[in-house]
Amino acid sequence: MKEFRIGMVGYKFMGKAHSNAYRALPMFFPNSKIKPRMSVICGRDEAGVTQAAKQFGWAEVETDWRKLVEREDIDLIDINAPSNVHKEIALAAARAGKHIFCEKPLALTLADSREMLAAAEKAGIKHMIGFNYRFTPAIQLAKKLVESGRLGELYHFRAWFLQDWIIDPTFPLVWRLQKEIAGSGSHGDLGAHLIDLAHYLVGDMKEVIGMSETFIRERPLASEMTGLTAKGSSDASKGKVTVDDATLFLSRFVSGTMGVFESTRLAAGHRSTNSFEINGSKGSVKFDFERMNELEVYFTDDEEDVQGFRRVLATDPAHAYSEAWWPTGHTIGFEHTFTHEMLELMNAIDEGRQPSPNFYDGVKCQAVLEAVERSVEERRWVSISEM
Amino acid sequence: MKEFRIGMVGYKFMGKAHSNAYRALPMFFPNSKIKPRMSVICGRDEAGVTQAAKQFGWAEVETDWRKLVEREDIDLIDINAPSNVHKEIALAAARAGKHIFCEKPLALTLADSREMLAAAEKAGIKHMIGFNYRFTPAIQLAKKLVESGRLGELYHFRAWFLQDWIIDPTFPLVWRLQKEIAGSGSHGDLGAHLIDLAHYLVGDMKEVIGMSETFIRERPLASEMTGLTAKGSSDASKGKVTVDDATLFLSRFVSGTMGVFESTRLAAGHRSTNSFEINGSKGSVKFDFERMNELEVYFTDDEEDVQGFRRVLATDPAHAYSEAWWPTGHTIGFEHTFTHEMLELMNAIDEGRQPSPNFYDGVKCQAVLEAVERSVEERRWVSISEM
Amino acid sequence: MKEFRIGMVGYKFMGKAHSNAYRALPMFFPNSKIKPRMSVICGRDEAGVTQAAKQFGWAEVETDWRKLVEREDIDLIDINAPSNVHKEIALAAARAGKHIFCEKPLALTLADSREMLAAAEKAGIKHMIGFNYRFTPAIQLAKKLVESGRLGELYHFRAWFLQDWIIDPTFPLVWRLQKEIAGSGSHGDLGAHLIDLAHYLVGDMKEVIGMSETFIRERPLASEMTGLTAKGSSDASKGKVTVDDATLFLSRFVSGTMGVFESTRLAAGHRSTNSFEINGSKGSVKFDFERMNELEVYFTDDEEDVQGFRRVLATDPAHAYSEAWWPTGHTIGFEHTFTHEMLELMNAIDEGRQPSPNFYDGVKCQAVLEAVERSVEERRWVSISEM
Amino acid sequence: MKEFRIGMVGYKFMGKAHSNAYRALPMFFPNSKIKPRMSVICGRDEAGVTQAAKQFGWAEVETDWRKLVEREDIDLIDINAPSNVHKEIALAAARAGKHIFCEKPLALTLADSREMLAAAEKAGIKHMIGFNYRFTPAIQLAKKLVESGRLGELYHFRAWFLQDWIIDPTFPLVWRLQKEIAGSGSHGDLGAHLIDLAHYLVGDMKEVIGMSETFIRERPLASEMTGLTAKGSSDASKGKVTVDDATLFLSRFVSGTMGVFESTRLAAGHRSTNSFEINGSKGSVKFDFERMNELEVYFTDDEEDVQGFRRVLATDPAHAYSEAWWPTGHTIGFEHTFTHEMLELMNAIDEGRQPSPNFYDGVKCQAVLEAVERSVEERRWVSISEM
Repeated sequence: MKEFRIGMVGYKFMGKAHSNAYRALPMFFPNSKIKPRMSVICGRDEAGVTQAAKQFGWAEVETDWRKLVEREDIDLIDINAPSNVHKEIALAAARAGKHIFCEKPLALTLADSREMLAAAEKAGIKHMIGFNYRFTPAIQLAKKLVESGRLGELYHFRAWFLQDWIIDPTFPLVWRLQKEIAGSGSHGDLGAHLIDLAHYLVGDMKEVIGMSETFIRERPLASEMTGLTAKGSSDASKGKVTVDDATLFLSRFVSGTMGVFESTRLAAGHRSTNSFEINGSKGSVKFDFERMNELEVYFTDDEEDVQGFRRVLATDPAHAYSEAWWPTGHTIGFEHTFTHEMLELMNAIDEGRQPSPNFYDGVKCQAVLEAVERSVEERRWVSISEM
Repeated sequence: MKEFRIGMVGYKFMGKAHSNAYRALPMFFPNSKIKPRMSVICGRDEAGVTQAAKQFGWAEVETDWRKLVEREDIDLIDINAPSNVHKEIALAAARAGKHIFCEKPLALTLADSREMLAAAEKAGIKHMIGFNYRFTPAIQLAKKLVESGRLGELYHFRAWFLQDWIIDPTFPLVWRLQKEIAGSGSHGDLGAHLIDLAHYLVGDMKEVIGMSETFIRERPLASEMTGLTAKGSSDASKGKVTVDDATLFLSRFVSGTMGVFESTRLAAGHRSTNSFEINGSKGSVKFDFERMNELEVYFTDDEEDVQGFRRVLATDPAHAYSEAWWPTGHTIGFEHTFTHEMLELMNAIDEGRQPSPNFYDGVKCQAVLEAVERSVEERRWVSISEM
Repeated sequence: MKEFRIGMVGYKFMGKAHSNAYRALPMFFPNSKIKPRMSVICGRDEAGVTQAAKQFGWAEVETDWRKLVEREDIDLIDINAPSNVHKEIALAAARAGKHIFCEKPLALTLADSREMLAAAEKAGIKHMIGFNYRFTPAIQLAKKLVESGRLGELYHFRAWFLQDWIIDPTFPLVWRLQKEIAGSGSHGDLGAHLIDLAHYLVGDMKEVIGMSETFIRERPLASEMTGLTAKGSSDASKGKVTVDDATLFLSRFVSGTMGVFESTRLAAGHRSTNSFEINGSKGSVKFDFERMNELEVYFTDDEEDVQGFRRVLATDPAHAYSEAWWPTGHTIGFEHTFTHEMLELMNAIDEGRQPSPNFYDGVKCQAVLEAVERSVEERRWVSISEM
Repeated sequence: MKEFRIGMVGYKFMGKAHSNAYRALPMFFPNSKIKPRMSVICGRDEAGVTQAAKQFGWAEVETDWRKLVEREDIDLIDINAPSNVHKEIALAAARAGKHIFCEKPLALTLADSREMLAAAEKAGIKHMIGFNYRFTPAIQLAKKLVESGRLGELYHFRAWFLQDWIIDPTFPLVWRLQKEIAGSGSHGDLGAHLIDLAHYLVGDMKEVIGMSETFIRERPLASEMTGLTAKGSSDASKGKVTVDDATLFLSRFVSGTMGVFESTRLAAGHRSTNSFEINGSKGSVKFDFERMNELEVYFTDDEEDVQGFRRVLATDPAHAYSEAWWPTGHTIGFEHTFTHEMLELMNAIDEGRQPSPNFYDGVKCQAVLEAVERSVEERRWVSISEM
């Protein structure tokens, strides 16, 4: 087994998820020819990143990503620092000839994303973007049913990503609610995943029109919050929320499929409902990430008296990745999507091809995100081709 | 269309349900050759029964069932008075040569039930018993799947009828909680339906063993309650509950199928969960009356990657009775099972055959009920054949 | 009990549903002070309408609606003939001083709808429109939760009405697929119900933008079909489908609530999924008419460890209409919404007020329908106020 | 952080699950004061165990467990070899003063289990048994609701563990279907988990009565199967299945709670439905391991119009273990129960107390298993106290 040396920038939520995935790979996919080596973890706060290195199992620590990308003993840079620094790191990594795994969104703007893709292509490196949901076994099954034609011509794609973690108006003004750092709110955070799944399962979009809203326009300043509590406090000074709480849009795919998308962080009762449904001429599928091991499947050619959505538990040997884990009926969780993602990264490198999804998919997603934003601003249908 | 003159004894819950069914028949099943005529309704309280006659649409009123069964202008006696008077009325009706529809339970004891069956057979009349759940379209579908062999050999039958209407300990000591009137508690009231469905769907039982419990042994006397409220009061004098709150039993069917049954009125959150599941060598079905328009169906020979329980909405033309009602996807409710039941009654009379289910099924159900009771008392397996 | 004499035009699906509701009223709501009298049923085909009169229980038959609306012995005209004749009948009925119950849609155009409303107001009659879904007990519960403030400020309303009855491309070109008779396809047929529920539960809309599609543009001519089969045939001559298979739109309510609506007849596996969800600052509700007895309810102020959507079975005494029917846990079906609708009609007349919903609601719905159509045609946001 | 040196016997399904848990502990529970050190893995097949050591991350290999238990550099023996060797290894480990983690079942018989418990107590070691399902966050929530009295007095416990992995009659005669190695079939394999959950959530049982069946009595010999396929072949020689396919039993708890249990490997469509429901005087909970992140919860004191089972997603900070993993709404899977289990093992050792569950719980479970077996054989209620 060949080793592939990773240098990772970032060590919070995604840093933890990636670390776990790198660790899991050799144990659960021992036949993979390339094995990630958790070489260096990088973060600005030396104490924090040192603790993370120890906890997550990284061999060394850097506090300056510029030094990291120049190290000769690193093959790939994994970028999961906040979105506003993705671009600079990726450009430097590409210049240094390192392969790149970059968390979504690729960058804060479409222009920046394109610059990153161009740089990666010019450098001839492998590049991947972190649309992890593709790697859910049940979504792999949906993909297979679409590709094999078992759903027929696709008429409808509807998707919604509903959360409620900021429904309390006293929840503080964290950086994810500030446009200059996060770039976007629910649209870029949640909608981006839906858009990528749409691209993956249905294909390219032709045009979109959307609407956006920030319902809770001021929130207590986080700096005045006591401790790390997410519950907030009602007596702190307030600052302005500069990203969307919710964004909805309609879309027409190149194939003619009709699409509708909704992302919100203000849907009471929805912790993380990442859901879609596809209706085709021969069948339908439904998915909800809160029940990520299941796919509901319907076929029009089932016998007349027993037609109905089947609740398929995607843990059988017939389902993607399942044999690597546990016996049929024994479910996996959120984190496993990252392990499958990193497997694709390793396999692509081994096979000398670009991983999928890669920066090209990141750019395509960003184009739709910005087309929607433009459609909101200009109150009109925006063609993806004009982006 | 020939008319068939009904004389009905009882005008409460079941009287209302039967009346509604008789009224609905000619409208929804106009091709039926025999039409029920709502001739006479009978009850002891003249004011009450007169009001019911007007409300439900009966032509005449009687206050003495003895007079009713002797009337020449009546073809069938519908008995839905309290269980402890079923026998006497049925015997008289049989003697008078009237056909009989009798609500379940046939009688308070197996011996009485047998006497009723014998009387009906001797009189050569048509007789039917009110196991209305058989007539749910989704259950008809289950029956069809069993009979056609699509579920294969049956391994398991599990059924539970869970309610919570007496979970409040201050709920009063109504007659249904008194053995001398009701005969039994949840076992005879709820369990009887499960047993009949088991007979219908799986076949005869060989032996049973059960357990029974009365958790709330004293309740406020209903006579001391204010008004009709079911909420009860905690400061009234108390009386002893003499029926079971819950009864469970295991059963072995003649076919070898293993059965488990549970009936309770103390299952918090269950308003009326009347549910069963059948597992066979080739497939399974699941049913819950709270979602009575649905049957979940599984087949072992579905393709490997899309095996799963199908949620079949039994409102398609392919499903029993559905074309009489509304377009596909438009559901029916509890009351419709009675209309279908009365349709069977009319059809059987038209075709000169016994309706199904009839007193024979009532006796068979009673035999199991008493076998379970004996098994509880004697703490041993009781064979149905010894009853 | 005062009687109110009904003359009904139409005797197909809706004629059957209305007849059943009129019949059920006195039995299930005996305390209602006004009772409908099923006086005259009217249709052009004498044999057909005579058969319907007998089957549904109407006293007399007319074959010319013009004669019907002039009869002195009729108090109310119930219009459920095809949509393209609603207006003419309603105008004549209003001129004759008859109260009117009109099935949705009020008319084929907004202008016609307004003319009908103006005529009704001028005549000083009572008028009602057949948005029956409002009268579902679970939806009444949703309304109560909204009105009492238990859901807080409303952020999101999403609704979808998904069917699949024309998914087979050989399904024939029935009149519902022809614009000149039906006026609209899924948008007017299904979307109209969603729009009315939105008005009822959330309030008025400010602006909309939509998209529409006819995926199967040609179908076998129905005249060349064999018999009445809905399955169609692939070798018949074909005609053009002139209505939409599916229409989606976004909406902004006056309150600021964001709305998304989808109606389609090409969603494989959905027999009649009429579904909505409301997310408010204090809670959410979810509804699906295929499980019409249930409402899912979430409150943000539930204790932290037991927050979750509650599956409420709206059959308790605490729920609207439930005490008129069956004991708690015993469900009702599609048809019962019409009985409740007719109860409102009778109660309103008794109380000397306009029923709700009435022609005003019909006009408001039509305005949104046409605003969406205009937005599709002109590819822009259309304000309701410009209609 | 103190290290605790593990020597593990077994490297198949459970060996993999345990290894994964040991690896995950320091990463996800970094504040735990004791850290497992994966010192030695032991198996008879040197090639196999060497490969497992490498794949799972163990430092050294042994092929003789006798040598392993004598090693000075080992603190705890983890036994997950086949059930028929548990006892011998455990006794030797205890004699050597090693702490023990033993997979369920403790042994093949109650007598052997008691011998193991006695040996462990005499040796003064820490001992734990692998009832991993206790450590599901949703089950922890159920436990909390029971213990805090929020469900009131417990009336009913019903549990069923349904699988279908041997429903194909050509599935071969693997060792799990042979009594001399496995000890028991579905009863010991699946039922044991249900019994432990019953002990954990409800308390001790007083008496039981059960029934057992082997439906498919002969299967193709595994030695004659081609390769490792679980699909079997119909033309191989057959051998006798000597364990139960399904076992059901009723139980009465010391508290008076009524219990019903069902375990089967022949429930078509159920990959691994490990499910229970508790009904108490103040509320109910429902659980299904196929949706392990969810607990359904009902309270009788909810307001009358919004009573219903709540679908609680047990991934909030208010739920056990959740903060160690991912943000709210991001689910975990089967394997995480083992990590929590090993956390309890480490914590107990750190705190100088016995882990829970331990050998005492293993003995108690075995007593019920054997009481059920005796009840099947002798066709009578068997008191746990007579075991």
